[in-house]
Amino acid sequence: MSFISNDPARFSEQATAGFVAAHGDLVRAVPGGVARRTATPQGQPAVVIGGGSGHYPAFGGLVGPGLAHGAAVGNVFASPSGQQVYDVAKAVENGGGVLLTCGNYAGDVLNFNQARDRLRAEGIAAETLFVTDDISSAKADERDKRRGIAGGLAVYKIAAAAAEAGKDLDQVVALAGKVNDNIRTLGVAFSGCTLPGAHEPLFTVPEGRMGVGVGIHGEPGIDETGLLSSQELATMLWDAVIAEKPDGAGDRAVIFVNGLGAVKNEELFILFNDVRALAERDGLVAADVEVGELVTSFEMAGASLSLWWVDEEIEQLWATPSYTSGYRKGALQADQGEVLDDVDASAAVEVGDATEESRQAARTIAGLLTTVHRTITEHADELGKLDAIAGDGDHGIGMERGARAAVEAADGLLDRQPGAQTLLVQAGAAWAAQAGGTSGVLWGALLDAIGRTVGDEVKPDPATVAAGVRAADESLRRIGGAQVGDKTMIDALVPFADALGKAVESGKDLAAGWTEAAQASTQAAQATADLMPKLGRARPHAEKSLGTADPGAISFALIATAVAQDL
Amino acid sequence: MSFISNDPARFSEQATAGFVAAHGDLVRAVPGGVARRTATPQGQPAVVIGGGSGHYPAFGGLVGPGLAHGAAVGNVFASPSGQQVYDVAKAVENGGGVLLTCGNYAGDVLNFNQARDRLRAEGIAAETLFVTDDISSAKADERDKRRGIAGGLAVYKIAAAAAEAGKDLDQVVALAGKVNDNIRTLGVAFSGCTLPGAHEPLFTVPEGRMGVGVGIHGEPGIDETGLLSSQELATMLWDAVIAEKPDGAGDRAVIFVNGLGAVKNEELFILFNDVRALAERDGLVAADVEVGELVTSFEMAGASLSLWWVDEEIEQLWATPSYTSGYRKGALQADQGEVLDDVDASAAVEVGDATEESRQAARTIAGLLTTVHRTITEHADELGKLDAIAGDGDHGIGMERGARAAVEAADGLLDRQPGAQTLLVQAGAAWAAQAGGTSGVLWGALLDAIGRTVGDEVKPDPATVAAGVRAADESLRRIGGAQVGDKTMIDALVPFADALGKAVESGKDLAAGWTEAAQASTQAAQATADLMPKLGRARPHAEKSLGTADPGAISFALIATAVAQDL
Repeated sequence: MSFISNDPARFSEQATAGFVAAHGDLVRAVPGGVARRTATPQGQPAVVIGGGSGHYPAFGGLVGPGLAHGAAVGNVFASPSGQQVYDVAKAVENGGGVLLTCGNYAGDVLNFNQARDRLRAEGIAAETLFVTDDISSAKADERDKRRGIAGGLAVYKIAAAAAEAGKDLDQVVALAGKVNDNIRTLGVAFSGCTLPGAHEPLFTVPEGRMGVGVGIHGEPGIDETGLLSSQELATMLWDAVIAEKPDGAGDRAVIFVNGLGAVKNEELFILFNDVRALAERDGLVAADVEVGELVTSFEMAGASLSLWWVDEEIEQLWATPSYTSGYRKGALQADQGEVLDDVDASAAVEVGDATEESRQAARTIAGLLTTVHRTITEHADELGKLDAIAGDGDHGIGMERGARAAVEAADGLLDRQPGAQTLLVQAGAAWAAQAGGTSGVLWGALLDAIGRTVGDEVKPDPATVAAGVRAADESLRRIGGAQVGDKTMIDALVPFADALGKAVESGKDLAAGWTEAAQASTQAAQATADLMPKLGRARPHAEKSLGTADPGAISFALIATAVAQDL
Repeated sequence: MSFISNDPARFSEQATAGFVAAHGDLVRAVPGGVARRTATPQGQPAVVIGGGSGHYPAFGGLVGPGLAHGAAVGNVFASPSGQQVYDVAKAVENGGGVLLTCGNYAGDVLNFNQARDRLRAEGIAAETLFVTDDISSAKADERDKRRGIAGGLAVYKIAAAAAEAGKDLDQVVALAGKVNDNIRTLGVAFSGCTLPGAHEPLFTVPEGRMGVGVGIHGEPGIDETGLLSSQELATMLWDAVIAEKPDGAGDRAVIFVNGLGAVKNEELFILFNDVRALAERDGLVAADVEVGELVTSFEMAGASLSLWWVDEEIEQLWATPSYTSGYRKGALQADQGEVLDDVDASAAVEVGDATEESRQAARTIAGLLTTVHRTITEHADELGKLDAIAGDGDHGIGMERGARAAVEAADGLLDRQPGAQTLLVQAGAAWAAQAGGTSGVLWGALLDAIGRTVGDEVKPDPATVAAGVRAADESLRRIGGAQVGDKTMIDALVPFADALGKAVESGKDLAAGWTEAAQASTQAAQATADLMPKLGRARPHAEKSLGTADPGAISFALIATAVAQDL
């Protein structure tokens, strides 16, 4: 379990603040995460990595000269939002385009691709690359479905080394892709980990047993065995990994022995001592060796072996120096370029012109966000229990965190006289960044879509609000890929948007229309109890939830109802 | 607990082998531990550190350019032997003398001082310095009784930086001493650790509680409290440490936030985030910050805060680059001097001339050592249980490990035709190096003293053997500081030496005299059950052992009896 924290809801925020304070010579705070303290040289492709917190040195600890230019920092075990990835990319991109790269997890893929598309829409060259080195997570003929673990370090470092060596973005992407194509990892876990603020471990491994292929977020493994000696463990890992030697690979490979958390360096050295005997047996030459913590999972007891087949070009790039808080290699020149200041995320928001009518609307909306947050706080437990039936039980926590962040973002802006759009877009970005999970992405997009429809000019009349809700409805269906009947928040949102539209068309005022829409939404949310949800990673026990309503739909209806009373 | 090992008795040996293999560019294997891969420049004072295994990066991980020249590597949580410290010093000393420095623990002090005296006897300038930064381990007016923990890194690095800056040994010692005088540390533990091969934790902390001032080997703390928030914990540690600000110290200090094992970097960053607010409150300027694992205790969950008040000279030395596997700072020049090969400990032994009679005696003695090992193996459980009553229950394990090492050292030498002295001295050194604990030191010294008495020239006649045992008896009383009646191995050794001397004087042959002496020894060992032992760190529950015999005395008598049957 984690032993040191203040408010678990602010765990990654405070950890990042302390990280930047401790390593201010190497990194600076930027909206969405951290960036190198020094500016990206003009025309050099920037490498932006990222992922959830709890995996140090991944991801902030891998930012610095010779490694990543920036890292988007999500909440504990949760993807950073698309906005965060975009913000970090904007902070480091300097005319050479940007590679956005991270482990191949559904939430990260969604958010990194979203950021890529926004950058491209602005005319910035942007590419994504998702690391897939974990051989336990899908079969060899489905490598693009595999998860990314310790292999990330290799991909990130080669990408950065190539960029610093003068390669252009296409070449950087090609070289990083070659690394990902030639690295294979398998891990084992002896115990689970307990997330900050949680009362129970995220997962457990029975005492005296070992899970093979368990993921760094506790994703189920492919096998469970008794404990092995170091020699037996080394052989099991080695044989599985070397069996996947890529076609055309030579006899030189970099070896990583990674510790996940509670397995200490002395044990990793013993494991490597047995691994090197196997390398000799099989005629594999160690081009380099890393033994230590490359990617972790809090205090999970586990270890992994990576083999990374290299050619001469890659080997030379790997040997170049890097200097980050979590990975230092070789000797760097002292002069690392122009030094930049920290950027406070709230100060970075541009507040443009707005009409007095729109500013008045923004103040009203800030008040409504407080109502949203209060409503969620009151129902957080109940929502969590509902979510625990099919999912991981964190819906209430995530919604509370997101709503609170939205309130804080809105309150922080009010002094600067924002219009309705500016306030809603910033509140949505804060919600998505802090909530984590699918609900965070969806609620962030919902506020964003309404904001962009109402603008910073007009006093939002009932028709504009109804149009904003309709735009949000369409945006969420596109992002989430869910339809009515899939037992999601969409089941409550669509009838709400429909009823609000009809009421406004018939001439009703906003308060009356919203009230009718909230009632329709509540009925629809309760009716989700009769639906069978789609299975998915977020809902491992979906079938158990038949007879209970969907927490996302219920929370939407609760919020809609509470807001109706304030209008 | 530890999850990856082969034979727990070979844990530190295999960990060191893997460590050297993984970091062969930085370190090389030498007898007694590890040394920098590159030679100490002529005339530069060498810095040799050391201690038990299980504290990575201490101690091997702190060897390399800009940090220690060598590290003596003991067994798990056990001091390296005097021989090991001496051997590492000899491997790195190059005309500038040597500083031997480690944490202030009884075993380490004994062995490091022993090595210092041997080096001085050879005309090599040698000094010792024992780190005493742990404020919980003795009161402020007894600082020389305090233990050394995370502060060691500061002492070792400044000593090495001073040496590399051209200071002579006296200046190096003075600067390192100034560091030790100005650094204060306090730690907490949330859980204990389980040593390799052990079935139970070395110590435990009740769930939801926190031990204040617990040592890195589980030494009892000064207080136990409920869990605190990070802010409260930071305040508690800060207030205690800053209250000990040294007289004359300025307002600049280096801050260490150290993780003991299972408390991860994210949590340490949160703690530092709260610490820096207190620094601001109290007007202390952070001259530098280190957050991470500086000294560990396997997977013990704990953290410590160090404040190290610095002046300009010290600050400049601290800022110089270093490049070791466990601590890298700044940019080093690529050229680090002459590269040296690994040294195999057994190949390094010089086998001088010996008479055929003495060589014959050495072969006999090698056979007797096998008997010693077999006897201990048969009784290891029983000895462990006896030891568990008053001590930590590892007497059987330690004796088995030592005796096995002695057998292996002897067998490894036989091909090279050693005399009796050479074989016994080397067997004794191996026993001391591998056994750990007081019994290892004593048995090593016992074999050494007998060997030096019999020499490599003569066939050992009964009188010579008796004189050797008498010399061993005197040596052990001097080293261990124990007398007859203190309930130690001395209670069995003294009557053995007396009886053997008398029997030989009266003209009996060795077999007959030894048998009589073994009987006297056995009676005396059994009679230790009636003695009340001295309290000491190794015997926290000494009073419980009234009525049971001393395991050290019993094991001596068992060995003496078994050997008698072979003579």
